[in-house]
Amino acid sequence: MPTVSDRGKLMPDSPIRKLGPLADKAKEKGIKVYHLNIGQPDLPTPPEALNAIKNIDRMILEYTPSEGIRSFREKLAKYYHKFKIDVDADDIIITTGGSEAVTFSFMSCLDPGDEIIVPEPAYANYEAFAIVAGAIIKPVTSKIEEGFALPPVEEFEKLITPKTKGIMICNPNNPTGYLYTREEMDKIRNLIKKYDLYLFSDEVYREFCYTGAPYISAFHLEGIEQNVVLIDSVSKRYSECGLRIGALITKNKEVKRNVMKFCQARLSAPLIGQIAAEASLDANPDYMLNNYNEYVNRRKFLIDGLNRIDGVYSPIPMGAFYTVARLPVDNADKFCSWLLSDFELENQTLFMAPASGFYTEPGKGLDEVRIAYVLKKEDLAVCLKILEEALKVYPGSKVRQIVANNESVR
Amino acid sequence: MPTVSDRGKLMPDSPIRKLGPLADKAKEKGIKVYHLNIGQPDLPTPPEALNAIKNIDRMILEYTPSEGIRSFREKLAKYYHKFKIDVDADDIIITTGGSEAVTFSFMSCLDPGDEIIVPEPAYANYEAFAIVAGAIIKPVTSKIEEGFALPPVEEFEKLITPKTKGIMICNPNNPTGYLYTREEMDKIRNLIKKYDLYLFSDEVYREFCYTGAPYISAFHLEGIEQNVVLIDSVSKRYSECGLRIGALITKNKEVKRNVMKFCQARLSAPLIGQIAAEASLDANPDYMLNNYNEYVNRRKFLIDGLNRIDGVYSPIPMGAFYTVARLPVDNADKFCSWLLSDFELENQTLFMAPASGFYTEPGKGLDEVRIAYVLKKEDLAVCLKILEEALKVYPGSKVRQIVANNESVR
Repeated sequence: MPTVSDRGKLMPDSPIRKLGPLADKAKEKGIKVYHLNIGQPDLPTPPEALNAIKNIDRMILEYTPSEGIRSFREKLAKYYHKFKIDVDADDIIITTGGSEAVTFSFMSCLDPGDEIIVPEPAYANYEAFAIVAGAIIKPVTSKIEEGFALPPVEEFEKLITPKTKGIMICNPNNPTGYLYTREEMDKIRNLIKKYDLYLFSDEVYREFCYTGAPYISAFHLEGIEQNVVLIDSVSKRYSECGLRIGALITKNKEVKRNVMKFCQARLSAPLIGQIAAEASLDANPDYMLNNYNEYVNRRKFLIDGLNRIDGVYSPIPMGAFYTVARLPVDNADKFCSWLLSDFELENQTLFMAPASGFYTEPGKGLDEVRIAYVLKKEDLAVCLKILEEALKVYPGSKVRQIVANNESVR
Repeated sequence: MPTVSDRGKLMPDSPIRKLGPLADKAKEKGIKVYHLNIGQPDLPTPPEALNAIKNIDRMILEYTPSEGIRSFREKLAKYYHKFKIDVDADDIIITTGGSEAVTFSFMSCLDPGDEIIVPEPAYANYEAFAIVAGAIIKPVTSKIEEGFALPPVEEFEKLITPKTKGIMICNPNNPTGYLYTREEMDKIRNLIKKYDLYLFSDEVYREFCYTGAPYISAFHLEGIEQNVVLIDSVSKRYSECGLRIGALITKNKEVKRNVMKFCQARLSAPLIGQIAAEASLDANPDYMLNNYNEYVNRRKFLIDGLNRIDGVYSPIPMGAFYTVARLPVDNADKFCSWLLSDFELENQTLFMAPASGFYTEPGKGLDEVRIAYVLKKEDLAVCLKILEEALKVYPGSKVRQIVANNESVR
């Protein structure tokens, strides 16, 4: 048999999906599995989108232009204007999900061996898309004790070589929920400017910022407009993960020319998805507000609850709908597997994403998990209870130790 | 400004889409442009698919499993059984169009520098996807004088090096319409077996075979079941190009494992597309038969018409809905551009795809075009008239010369 590619072997297993078979087995045993592992919102898609789909009045489902439907791009430009992102339809290329936007960004800007610096923990698939492009991610580690704030600029500068072509950020951040401050964004801007790098900025969670602190887009940073490649997606904003509609936004004509060649090769983004996504831009403001308020409540409930469990620590996420929490366990990969294969509380268990998969450096995040608060409060209450009880009996738990120490201190 | 990638610069412009801006300008001038350039059928999507979309009864448009919806894969397996392709649901991975199936095949099986042999002219985007994967296409040229039959096996063997990992075919063929014979497929099978190569086989046009000659799938070839990666798509079969639903089919577990990592990284193929494609498998047999008969009629009408024009030659395509024709012109790229920018007949003109883009070797196919018969017969009649008249006045035409020679012979 011919050999398969080394590149494929290098590709990481998804930390979000790799425990899926264990979850399936648990379900086969009749156990209810609460999915905190995946950023699949449980909130409804806007009725405007569903109606647009139901009212399709075409006889032929044709290719769209490779750059996306014009009216959709024009409407998206207006949407960005509300966030003071000054782009027009020609700067916007519709992609098949944010995933394709990241892939095409890397493909268009990076050659094999080129390096990008990424604050970690980071969305696991950036690593996968870098491997697809033959590029190398150089991580700088953000720390849970610092609430996952931007690491010092010196940490970035230490990694800069002639091979460095860019910095990639996700803001608000998946998996940490961190929202970069104006000061931090200015530091990133200065690095980009000083070393003439690309800034790949994934801003799909912009609608979900909870602390009153401003959302600073990469396009708000002066003097690096040609360096910015913005990644967007309607998946999370409108609960439309299944549509596979994203966008790549650049004012750099050379980058756009390259991106368009990759777009033409794959012909078209999905037609129906574009129609539904365009309609979603007309979603009733109440729809967005209700979803926002729901996440605000869940966030408070979840983070409070986590921090009340012995030995568990979660910083307070400022945006998105995730948190990375530290658990009192020997190894979160083992713990998450164990929860699915060996534990149940009243016939229920939890599916969380071990955080090690969000670091490219082996050995990092071994006692951390990413939790997506994509379930309603009553379910989150059950999840917290399951977690608390599981930590009491998990063989690799440090809870008994922690409780004993606390008691000896008293 | 940071530099863009060399890979992006290497990417070919789509021969099918690169003249698009000229077509747009012609339309702005009020000229009607007949699109023979693109494989976008004008035939309707099955009502079963449209109804499935209109009857969506979901509140949330969620991700699907990365390998595709189970019920769809099971139904697809049954569809393949009708063609005596012996696969089951677990051998089938749903992709975002056939494009993604080719990309993931290359990504999963080929490393940078690996080579695949492709009979040319070939679907232009194979070259693009090879560049994406860093792989190299080694072309063997099929010739218009031979009706684009499979080149001799010796031509393949001459190109085989330690870097050769596979052969890619498209059967029935885009752009030539050629259908490989049992004998030719056996030769390919023997090459695959002898050198232990992958056989990437794009069979999206299987429903469109017109001569009574059998469609031989790569999966019909004995003893190379583990080497075959089959590419499929619903785009052409059901006029559903806009859905972006394809499939990658392999019995090779190692290949599948690699492919699944690329699938997980991009999360999911489009949900609505999968629902509609699944419903299309229930299309009324009359629907398929009507479309088939329509293409049979168009094919006869177009090919007869082409061969009646002075200096034009088209072999008789046996399948798909394309032909590659030789025109009496200095340069088909120039001629196709000229048709859009400098010619009109009663305010109408033609958009054809210059065939040079379907060859990786420069200088090949310079007097050939690909014509897609995706317009109804009355429109094809107009197209033939436009072509005939254009050839009489195009500055680089050889028609006058040919006519003069013919007359001097008489």
